[in-house]
Order: sequence, then structure tokens, then C-alpha cells
Amino acid sequence: MTLYPADDRFAEAVRAQLGDDVLRPVSERYLEEPRQRFVGQGGLLALPKTVEEVSALVRLAADACVPVVPYGGGTGLVGGQVAPDGPTPLIISLDRMSAIRAIYPTENILVAEAGAILADVQAAAEDAERLFPLSLAAQGSCRIGGNLATNAGGVNVLRYGNARDLCLGLEVVLPSGDIWHGLSRLRKDNTGYDLRNLMIGSEGTLGIITAAALKLFPQPKGVGTAMLEVASPEAAIDLLSLARDQVGEAISTFELIHRQGLQFLTEVLPDIRQPFAKPPEWSVLIELGLSAGQDPSDMLEAIYVAAEERGLVGDAVIAQSEAQRAELWAVREQIPEANRLVGSVSSHDISVPISRIPEFIQRGARVVAKQGPFRVNCFGHLGDGNLHYNVFPPAGHDKAEFDAQRSAVKRAVHDLVHEFEGSVSAEHGVGRLKTDDLEDYGDPVRLQAMRAIKMALDPKGIMNPGAVLKN
Amino acid sequence: MTLYPADDRFAEAVRAQLGDDVLRPVSERYLEEPRQRFVGQGGLLALPKTVEEVSALVRLAADACVPVVPYGGGTGLVGGQVAPDGPTPLIISLDRMSAIRAIYPTENILVAEAGAILADVQAAAEDAERLFPLSLAAQGSCRIGGNLATNAGGVNVLRYGNARDLCLGLEVVLPSGDIWHGLSRLRKDNTGYDLRNLMIGSEGTLGIITAAALKLFPQPKGVGTAMLEVASPEAAIDLLSLARDQVGEAISTFELIHRQGLQFLTEVLPDIRQPFAKPPEWSVLIELGLSAGQDPSDMLEAIYVAAEERGLVGDAVIAQSEAQRAELWAVREQIPEANRLVGSVSSHDISVPISRIPEFIQRGARVVAKQGPFRVNCFGHLGDGNLHYNVFPPAGHDKAEFDAQRSAVKRAVHDLVHEFEGSVSAEHGVGRLKTDDLEDYGDPVRLQAMRAIKMALDPKGIMNPGAVLKN
Repeated sequence: MTLYPADDRFAEAVRAQLGDDVLRPVSERYLEEPRQRFVGQGGLLALPKTVEEVSALVRLAADACVPVVPYGGGTGLVGGQVAPDGPTPLIISLDRMSAIRAIYPTENILVAEAGAILADVQAAAEDAERLFPLSLAAQGSCRIGGNLATNAGGVNVLRYGNARDLCLGLEVVLPSGDIWHGLSRLRKDNTGYDLRNLMIGSEGTLGIITAAALKLFPQPKGVGTAMLEVASPEAAIDLLSLARDQVGEAISTFELIHRQGLQFLTEVLPDIRQPFAKPPEWSVLIELGLSAGQDPSDMLEAIYVAAEERGLVGDAVIAQSEAQRAELWAVREQIPEANRLVGSVSSHDISVPISRIPEFIQRGARVVAKQGPFRVNCFGHLGDGNLHYNVFPPAGHDKAEFDAQRSAVKRAVHDLVHEFEGSVSAEHGVGRLKTDDLEDYGDPVRLQAMRAIKMALDPKGIMNPGAVLKN
Repeated sequence: MTLYPADDRFAEAVRAQLGDDVLRPVSERYLEEPRQRFVGQGGLLALPKTVEEVSALVRLAADACVPVVPYGGGTGLVGGQVAPDGPTPLIISLDRMSAIRAIYPTENILVAEAGAILADVQAAAEDAERLFPLSLAAQGSCRIGGNLATNAGGVNVLRYGNARDLCLGLEVVLPSGDIWHGLSRLRKDNTGYDLRNLMIGSEGTLGIITAAALKLFPQPKGVGTAMLEVASPEAAIDLLSLARDQVGEAISTFELIHRQGLQFLTEVLPDIRQPFAKPPEWSVLIELGLSAGQDPSDMLEAIYVAAEERGLVGDAVIAQSEAQRAELWAVREQIPEANRLVGSVSSHDISVPISRIPEFIQRGARVVAKQGPFRVNCFGHLGDGNLHYNVFPPAGHDKAEFDAQRSAVKRAVHDLVHEFEGSVSAEHGVGRLKTDDLEDYGDPVRLQAMRAIKMALDPKGIMNPGAVLKN
């Protein structure tokens, strides 16, 4: 259906219904995204304070066939939050809906508005002596509504799942403007289709999440953190199996790190303290969250000893204090920043079946080498089968020199992922960056079903047009 | 859209395309359901052997506008598996698609066809030294496709989640006959709408699940089981919190048992060995699944001592052998059979927010008493907020005497559940039994979205018509 811009007349209609306070001039930050692949073309910015205001805004947009772009923390990496073309949109920011509405410690549930910053949700849980485990680099600025809209992942997925697994209920404004009051605190409810999970991960194309009932967990009684040199990616996978045998689901983090990442840190972030005198080719960051009566260091040492007997591990650093733990985490957490400073030719957020990761890494090296003398930094959430597979220019060169090769590199890596029955967007989503990939690699029957669902719930196509599904 | 019966002409068309082997006379078991509320009216029975055959069958049905009833193990309790009215359907049984297609121990994944019996899936996981945790009374005859179609629950939901949480990927024949090849082994894949969870719990109204990639887990190194007398439902909830503080997510089972259930066992199943000399008003069955280095008896005793100090628990039996463990489980598992032998006036599979359960139980007793001198057996998955709240005739009377009151009792209980923001189908689904409840209690915006999705994916309305959504 034809869409129309959010023009002055539309702004007048908004003011007439909602007053002057809800609209704001669009500042730059609503038109940018972290990787600068997409630049928003302006639009009308609304900052509603209640779900009823969101509903009224969407209803006005639906009546006038004006596109709507929902805006959370703006930290998404695939351009889902900015509309670079088409009629200028109504941008609905959730900034002013940031309350923690309620917390139910006995039920291990917290109800937050969509605009609540992830770190604030974590802190509210901690105040109640509970854990909200979603944890990712952008947690100081991303907002929980965006985390849910993109089904965010992060470093604790291995144990606690991604954003989808941490949500019990949603309040959503549908493309009609209707409000779905689905803030359920029920752990079990089998009364009909799973609208909640349909909304989660739909990246603002099926509705606007305005609040969520989130699952909390007991805080671990003891936390153990270590960085271990591993002989190979195979050895890392074997180490994970071995650790699982010993401590079950207590492994909250299992991150693979390649030497390239440590070398980048040395180059561009030399203040980061490196765990090993000589950077090993492969290492893993492991963290255990344990219950009462289990000593973290003992558990990690037992894992190390068993792994050492099998020749899986070399050097190891087991954190002996909170400060040492923070140092180990800084290594993992600053690798993306080092990558950004070095500047990649092409970055890939991929997953493949876990047992095929070693083969994928070998094949990937050959595939990339064919494209040119690139450096690869491959790291990430090994326990989830999710690697950040980033390709960099040779030392001494700038990424700009390889702009012309970017799409060929990306295509080569993504083709390989597809051959391995993997995903070209493991945790970042499709946004506007990967709509072509979805067309190229997605199951056609699934795509057809997705289009049918989009048409059923958003017949005018106003919700975040151009994201997930191509126009 | 008008539907037509699966008549002789349609059977001919099936035989012409798929040969004589796929069709069978409809035996009684395909027309019955355990509670005998619905009786199937016959139809054409197909037993396909491959997903391609399922696809061809559905395509023929779609072309001829013939209703399709997917059939798993037939153990569902809400009549989703039988069509009592409307044009006689094509019944597609998955009996002959029961293979375990593959198992990936390193990845903790098993791929099973929809017709695999749940107990066989559990056994295949065990053979690979893994755990498939879905566990429920019907596991010897229910089939995994039906478990997924109904998002089955059971006794391990507290720790491992329901069927939805145990599935990574699906192969599904959509109402068009198209095959969605979604048997993903990926733990993370954010490429578009969550079709998997939309299919799970849709009770055969959006497609036929033909295979699933299922999550496996490490087998616990030690299992501890105990039955504890608790002072009240409040005390049971406090005990759960206390146990969680001590052992985190290791609690796999936390089941509430009321004296009424133990008395029913004494009456109708006297061979079941009772744990307590005098049945306590309230007790709980708790089971821990522990990792290496944790002694189950020590952990349970520590929980008991702490709970005893706070006055939460009275008598307790901690299983000291596998035989004792089986005895404790038999008590819990045979309560539904005892209920069946006694004969309920009305049974309710409900959930409410966990912290409100004590209040619900008090209010429920008053609400039922107003309806008559009934006995209530309230038991079940307390940790999930899911109670089986069953109402029985007074001692010495038969349920048939109260047939006229059944709907009033049900309505009174369900009204109360609704007032408590609960669900009238926590784990059994909607089927044909609870479509009216969905209309009465469901969020109208959500219902509208469900209808739009149904229309989008099944425009002719052939898939399990009358289930979940009223015709």
C-alpha cells in the first residue's frame, strides 16, 4: 500500500490529539547507527510517555498510512532503527517509557517498560537479590524493548538463553494501534498461538513492544572465571563437553578468543592487561556460576586438570579476585572496540552447528585467503555456535582501500555459512543490512509464511518498512 | 470457506497419487480421546511414511477443501485430536514416521520424526548419555509431534521448560502442502519471524509438524528425591525459594500434593505405598539433579534443616535408594489415575502467578463450596504456578449425579482463575474443549491477531478446524 510522509499536516494531527509535548525536533542520534552504514533521512520524532500515547500515535499513522520506525537505544548493528529512504517516518522513541513497573521476587519476575536501559534492569534485579542475565557490550545504552525486538544474545546465552528465553509476557501496540495486554506473569499458559515469540525478534515490523514481564534468576553463590589456552577449536569444544560433564549447566560463559584479537588489543588498546605473556593462537574465557557449597576455584582447577590430562589445554589463568576477574573480562569485552579501531573490511555475525565449527574455521581461512591477504579475527560465543567472524585489511593498510572488495568477501563468507547450514545473523538480526541475505539464503517457504504474517498483522505496511522483509 | 468431506472420490484421488498403502480403515482409537468428551465421526485415515507423503496429502486436501486432523499419540486431554462434527476429515496419523533421524552428542541435539514415542526419544538420549527432560504421565504412548503441537509440560518444566523450550528446529507441512525445512541445529539464529514457536502450541491448526530438532542436556550426576510435609501452600512457596537459594536451578521437580490425593490413593489404589503414616494436609515432592561433587542426600538434608528452622516443614522422607525414589514418584504419578477412578465432576488445568497461589486455594475452596458439598483435589506443578484443580463428588456419590452442575462448577473456577490473571489451560492446550473459554477470557486483541494469522497461513481453514479457534 502507498505510504505517505510524516509531514506538517500529520504533525498537526498528532498535536491536536496528544498535545505539544509528545513531538520533538529530530536530533542526529535518532538518524545514526553505530556502523554508519545507514543514515536516517529525518522524520517526525515522538516521545510518548504511556502505552495509550503509543497506541494513539500508531493509530494516527495507520489512518494516514505514515511509516513508523520504533526506536530503542539505537545500538542495533543492522540498521533496523533508521529509515534511509521512503517517505519520512514517524519515529517513536521509547526513551520516556523507562520505568521498572514492578518486581515480584517470590515469582522471579520483573516488569519493565520498553525504554528501560538494560543495565538499569540488571541493577533493579540485583537490588532484589536476583539476576537478570541478559548481558552484552551495549548494556549501558541499549533498551530492553530493543533487546526483545531484536532477540538480543550476548555472553550468557549458553546458560540462560537469549532475550526470547528471558521473557514471560509483553505489552505491545499492534500496527492497528490496538494494545495487546499480554504482560503475563504465568510460567505456563497454553491458550493459543505464541504471539509473544512472534513479536520478539520481529524488529519492530509487527508492532511496538511497550513493556515486558522478564524472568529473574537466583544469583549464583560463587562465580569462577578463567582464561585457558586451548590447543585448537576442536579442543575448545571438547573442553566445553568436559566442563559440562563436571558442572552441568553452571557454565554461563564460554567464549573463544583468537590470537588476532589479542594482537589487536596490543596494537590499539595497549592499556588492557593481557592474560598470557605470549598470546596463544586459541584461548577461551570460561565463567561458572555456582550454587552453595561449591568452590569456584576448586571446580575450575578440577576442569583444568582433567582437560590437561587429555591434552586440551596449555597455559591458564584462574581469577583469584574480583579485580582479576574484571581484567579477564576486559580482554573479551574490548575486542569489539579493538576491531572497530583497526577497522574491518567486513564483519559477520554467524552461527553454524557447534560440531562443525573447527571445519568451518579451516575452510573460512581458505575462502578468505582467496579474496586477498586479509587478517581474520574469529571470536565469540563458542558454546552457542555463534562466531563473530571479522575480516581485516593486512597490517599497515586501511579498510577504505578494500571497499570495493567488501561485498565479495561478505558473499564468500556467507556462502560458506550457508553451505554449513548456518545462519548469517546469529544474534544481531536482519534489520536493513541483511534483507538481501534473507532472500538469498532463507527457506522460501518460511519467507512466504513470514510475508503472509506481515500482511495479516500490518496490511498497510506501516511498521518499520524495509526492515526484515524487503519492500 | 466451505469444506467438503473426505469421501470416496477424495480417497480415490489419494490412492491415484500415493498408492494403496497410505490409506487405512479408521479404527476406533483414532476416534476416541481419553476423557470421552468428544467422539470422532469417522473419516479417511492416512498413515504417511515420509514428509513428502504428508505434503502430498495436505496438498490434495487443500485442493479439495477437505478438513485435515493431524493425529499423534491420541493422549491429548482437550479433544484436539478428534473432529466430532463438520465434514468428515482426512485423519493424518504420524504413526509410521517414528524414526530417530540423527543424534549429535557434541551438540546435545537429537532429531526425531513427529511420530516417535516420547519414551523412545528419552531412551535414545539416554543411550547417548544425555537427558531429554520432557516427562509426563503419557510418555509411553504420546508422540513427540503431538507434544510439540500442544507445547506439552510435565514434571520437569521448572528446570528445563516445556516442549517449546526443548526444540531448536522443525520440519512442518504448512496448510498449502508446502514443506518448511526448518530442522535447524543452531542455538542462535536471528533471521526473521519465529515460525517455530508459532507452530509449537498451535495444536495442528497451522500445519503438521513432521520432525523436530530437540535439545538434549547433560545427565545429572546425582539425583535426590524427597517428600516433605509442608505447613501450608505459603510454606511450600517459601520452601521453594529457600531451596533455590541453596541449589540454584538444580531443582527439577517441585510438586504440591494435597491430602485429598493421598486419601484417594488409599481408597482406590491401596497398593501404592504412602510415604507418611498419617497423610499431611499439604506435602511436596522435590527432586534435585546435581552436578559432580554434590551429594544429593546432604543437599536435601541441608534444605530440610534450614526449612525446619523456619517452621516450613514437618515430617520428611528422603529417598535412600532408587526403589524408594520410585515409591515417592509413584505417589505423585498415580494421583491422576486415582482421580480418574474416583471420577471428577470437573477438572481444571490452571495457572496463576505463583505468589498468589495460597490466596487462590483459599478463595477456590469457598467458590467450590458455594456450588455444593464437593471435594477438591488440588495438586501439581507448584514451581510453575500450574495446579490441577479437580472437583469431586462427596464421598459415597458418583460424578454422574452432578452432571448438571459441571458447567457451573467449571465456570466458577475459571472465573476465579481469570480474576487472578491466570490461565484456564496451563499445559493441556485449548483443543475443542476450551474454545469457549478462549472467547470468554482471552485478550480480544490477541484473539484478533490469532484469527488473522490463521487466515493468513490457512486461508481455506482446512487444518484441524474447530480446534483452538471456533469456526
